[in-house]
Amino acid sequence: MTRQELVAQILSKKSYLCVGLDTDPLKIPRHLQSKPDGVLEFNKAIIDATKDHCVSYKINTAFYESQGIKGWEIMEATLAYIPKTHFTIADAKRGDIGNTSSQYAKTFFEVLPFDAVTVAPYMGEDSVRPFLEYINKWTIVLGLTSNAGSFDFQRLSLADMDGKRLYEQVLETTCKWGSPSNLMFVVGATRASDLSDIRKIIPDHFLLVPGVGAQGGSLEEVSKYGLNRDAGLLVNASRAIIFAGGGEDFALAAKKVAVAYQEEMAKYL
Amino acid sequence: MTRQELVAQILSKKSYLCVGLDTDPLKIPRHLQSKPDGVLEFNKAIIDATKDHCVSYKINTAFYESQGIKGWEIMEATLAYIPKTHFTIADAKRGDIGNTSSQYAKTFFEVLPFDAVTVAPYMGEDSVRPFLEYINKWTIVLGLTSNAGSFDFQRLSLADMDGKRLYEQVLETTCKWGSPSNLMFVVGATRASDLSDIRKIIPDHFLLVPGVGAQGGSLEEVSKYGLNRDAGLLVNASRAIIFAGGGEDFALAAKKVAVAYQEEMAKYL
Repeated sequence: MTRQELVAQILSKKSYLCVGLDTDPLKIPRHLQSKPDGVLEFNKAIIDATKDHCVSYKINTAFYESQGIKGWEIMEATLAYIPKTHFTIADAKRGDIGNTSSQYAKTFFEVLPFDAVTVAPYMGEDSVRPFLEYINKWTIVLGLTSNAGSFDFQRLSLADMDGKRLYEQVLETTCKWGSPSNLMFVVGATRASDLSDIRKIIPDHFLLVPGVGAQGGSLEEVSKYGLNRDAGLLVNASRAIIFAGGGEDFALAAKKVAVAYQEEMAKYL
Repeated sequence: MTRQELVAQILSKKSYLCVGLDTDPLKIPRHLQSKPDGVLEFNKAIIDATKDHCVSYKINTAFYESQGIKGWEIMEATLAYIPKTHFTIADAKRGDIGNTSSQYAKTFFEVLPFDAVTVAPYMGEDSVRPFLEYINKWTIVLGLTSNAGSFDFQRLSLADMDGKRLYEQVLETTCKWGSPSNLMFVVGATRASDLSDIRKIIPDHFLLVPGVGAQGGSLEEVSKYGLNRDAGLLVNASRAIIFAGGGEDFALAAKKVAVAYQEEMAKYL
């Protein structure tokens, strides 16, 4: 998907919502847990209920891998079920030396035809490049995450760089490897004021913002500091949407939360 | 596998060789490429030929994922074929927020019963902890890698830390989360003299050292600076062993290279 197509969809739907399909088989409604295709049925119902209100779906690969081969089948079928209009993200956080990253890129851009994949930056340029070589595909590099562990390394200050933090250096360095048309960054939402500094480094790139909802980030703050002239945001909510209801009406409950996000987003756009 | 069992195997075989099964389907001998189970047949022949000379096998998950569901079946079958005596590593470089890392840990310790999995440190403690909760399983954290990209971030100096580099801080911080009995580090071999400094930070931990062979590292240097009183090294060679020969005698060619490594290691132990 091109940047133009993504932006057009955001403006027409007045939504920059990404729904995260972190589908833990133990957390889906009980009436689905006993069915062999319960997770897939759950995902399909969530997609049907939310697709008019979001522009993107993010599949957290861990929740599928942990079901073994069956899980990969469900991931494949879920991806195929998502409308082609929607921007699809493999939240896989891969990254390795070049010849290995090439294989991961093949996995998530060819074998599973996602639009985007999340990538960890620790191993540097040659671990990220193979993903960027694909036309109309996106690489989403971890910048600043929203978990407690982000303080362990990401926020350390670097020597001889006027107190610049590691994640700022990651943004500055990495953004030179691609363009705002094939590169995005994961930026967590727990301290939205950080976004204002981040926008000074990367004013044009899209940011994928997790941590709104279950992890406590504020949509208003994220939008205030994160939106740019092309919107430039994908705000992800996973558990807050997909597990909003625990009964047979789970899809309706999910839809209500997605609508609430979308209506709030319409105000900020 | 316990540390004691691993050390005993190293001492009895006089080998700390790990064979990397980075089995690219396009690089296996031609007579196997046309067979539906060619990769599995290749892996089995490599294992049969090398098992007496190595103590560990490392499966690079990327090369299996990129074959889709079929690849996961081959990974499962390959893992099952490796003798229980050998230390098995999923080279997967995973890492995400806690509830997601728990799923990855389940994948590589339960669904696929590896002894160890490689983990990226960028997201910090809560991204690593779920792996460490498993008894007699091992977490292998990326410290210093051997690729060119290791200069982008890993070798940056940190402020107010007397020039300490990021990878040194990763080693110092991360080693407190586990013990030398459940935690190892990936340390690349391209600048073996770095190993001497690394041993000052983590004298007791096992190091998984890739980059010997195809990537140009020297076994003699790595052994000189990396061995500790329990050996404390697993030296990995992938392409240098498994693709040593390209014809029907590929397994014999692999065995010869494995024997050469083992015989050299016997001198250093």
